[in-house]
Amino acid sequence: MRIDLALVGFGNVGRRFARLLEEQRSQLLADHDLDCRIIGIATGRHGAAFRAGGIDGVAAADLVEAGRPLDDVHDGTAARLPARALDVIALAARSAAGARVVVETTTLNIRDGRPAIDHVEAALAAGCHVVTANKGPAAFAYDDLRARADAGGLSFLFEGAVMDGVPIFNFVRETLPTVKVLGFRGVINSTTNHILTALETGEAFEPALARMQALGIAEADPALDVDGWDAAAKAAALANVLMGAGITPHDVRRTGIGPGSAARAAAARASGRRLRLVASATRGAVPVVEPVELPEHDLLGGLEGTANALVLRTDLLDEIAICQLGGGLVHTAYALLSDLVTVRRRMRA
Amino acid sequence: MRIDLALVGFGNVGRRFARLLEEQRSQLLADHDLDCRIIGIATGRHGAAFRAGGIDGVAAADLVEAGRPLDDVHDGTAARLPARALDVIALAARSAAGARVVVETTTLNIRDGRPAIDHVEAALAAGCHVVTANKGPAAFAYDDLRARADAGGLSFLFEGAVMDGVPIFNFVRETLPTVKVLGFRGVINSTTNHILTALETGEAFEPALARMQALGIAEADPALDVDGWDAAAKAAALANVLMGAGITPHDVRRTGIGPGSAARAAAARASGRRLRLVASATRGAVPVVEPVELPEHDLLGGLEGTANALVLRTDLLDEIAICQLGGGLVHTAYALLSDLVTVRRRMRA
Repeated sequence: MRIDLALVGFGNVGRRFARLLEEQRSQLLADHDLDCRIIGIATGRHGAAFRAGGIDGVAAADLVEAGRPLDDVHDGTAARLPARALDVIALAARSAAGARVVVETTTLNIRDGRPAIDHVEAALAAGCHVVTANKGPAAFAYDDLRARADAGGLSFLFEGAVMDGVPIFNFVRETLPTVKVLGFRGVINSTTNHILTALETGEAFEPALARMQALGIAEADPALDVDGWDAAAKAAALANVLMGAGITPHDVRRTGIGPGSAARAAAARASGRRLRLVASATRGAVPVVEPVELPEHDLLGGLEGTANALVLRTDLLDEIAICQLGGGLVHTAYALLSDLVTVRRRMRA
Repeated sequence: MRIDLALVGFGNVGRRFARLLEEQRSQLLADHDLDCRIIGIATGRHGAAFRAGGIDGVAAADLVEAGRPLDDVHDGTAARLPARALDVIALAARSAAGARVVVETTTLNIRDGRPAIDHVEAALAAGCHVVTANKGPAAFAYDDLRARADAGGLSFLFEGAVMDGVPIFNFVRETLPTVKVLGFRGVINSTTNHILTALETGEAFEPALARMQALGIAEADPALDVDGWDAAAKAAALANVLMGAGITPHDVRRTGIGPGSAARAAAARASGRRLRLVASATRGAVPVVEPVELPEHDLLGGLEGTANALVLRTDLLDEIAICQLGGGLVHTAYALLSDLVTVRRRMRA
């Protein structure tokens, strides 16, 4: 079955997704009867394009990576050059006859989750399914967007929001029927975990952070990570989806890491413990993100570098942990692809 | 939707399953439109019963736990008292009009996986779905049983075969589409993990084993565990299902633990390492079960007592680990229940 995609956001994740779609094309077709065609792309800095007959995603990624705008792949005979993401969503919704999915990969706005939420709302209103790697929609507006999707018989999926492609939301939804999640604790931000690992060896905070930035692990503006906002957004998404919390990242009790973490991390390590930025929550209570000293044999204490882990506390199965031991862009791209397969599977049902 | 169940095996797992079914009855109905009715029970030592109108599973469990045979709940007007498991399967297949599932919970026969395989074959031949907690069918005869199930449009599920109710097979099948499993390594036998943890403190093997038996952790005949057969059966099932190995537990290169493990475990611990019975495999090679010295910060090295973990090596997501941090009979019973939900979900598709 053909599914038409409109990509909103075409940064590192969006472009890796476009390439992964090609790499997995034959397998998606053979195993899932899924034939994805990109018909629209909206970007913040590289223009936009629409082509009802299909856009070559790899060529488009090459174009952007060569520093050229997407206007070159736009089909001028069909529509005016779209100016904004909402234009591309509207064009895709009007054009395609069959199933349409908006693939949202813009970056998180920690203030209010927009414009990602706007994109999701517009897509659902136009009858498009949504898959997104952005944490904002599930962290800020889960209940409302879930209700809109359900009312339209549409999917709203976001596996990439937490632990990239390693299944968390799909894991609970698809493989733990009737199980109630009572709480969770996790190390779910890689940058702070990298920095804390460096601090344990006696490195000071500022040089450690600068080194992580030089290595491309931390962002140029690392505030989202070191202040705990990224972990708080993930904790809010987890609490909203798994425990019906109905909160935003601003409700999370949040303590980040900073220069003061260096001595604490080194001292903890010297006494056989590990300082880790832990996101935790109990059903009915507000999630917490804060540095915690953990015994070294604790599952979360042993995580180094990009390794992430989430421990779910459940009613029937006690504690279950899922760990992402590697990492990388392809993981997040895969999350989008796995969500597309879920959209396809639901069409058979 | 009503689904009729024939229980083959009614030991600790089967009885806990019957009780769990009652505990979750309203949720199964509300969330999954699943109404399970037990119509037959076959046991090795407590007789058998058949009642087309439905058997009260909790009452039957109470009866057996009071040391009485199941004959009392048998409906004598409908059929002669069934003598064997195959009789109960045949009665269930003939009697029920709608969907029928054989729930197989007999214990593993490490010689050839029978009679569990016979039960699965008979159930599939009679048009019944199969869910089982027995490792034998997937460890000894996966390809053949899978082909029979597929040919009949039936489900053959066995989530409980490895790590009890924590999803492994469902995890890969439902949440990792297009991902290829390249290998695995895991600590997947609780008894040996308990014993090795005891040996690390300087306890000798025989007293440690005797203490585990007294605590009910090790079996009266612990050979299946300490000789590595249980882990080998699980490794074979994993290799067959996840990597198309087509092997039996007898193909696994297997080394168990014994009196010689005591000094090794204590010495490893003293030098900051942990001795663990590890099952591992690479696609295309024969799985191995053997005691391995692991760094303490290794995910598998840190597991204590009943904790189990499986690390999957994949093409797209590097290494992913799933950990079962608690344990107990309800976990295995839950595995059967989650498989029943899968059977139900497939009926909608």
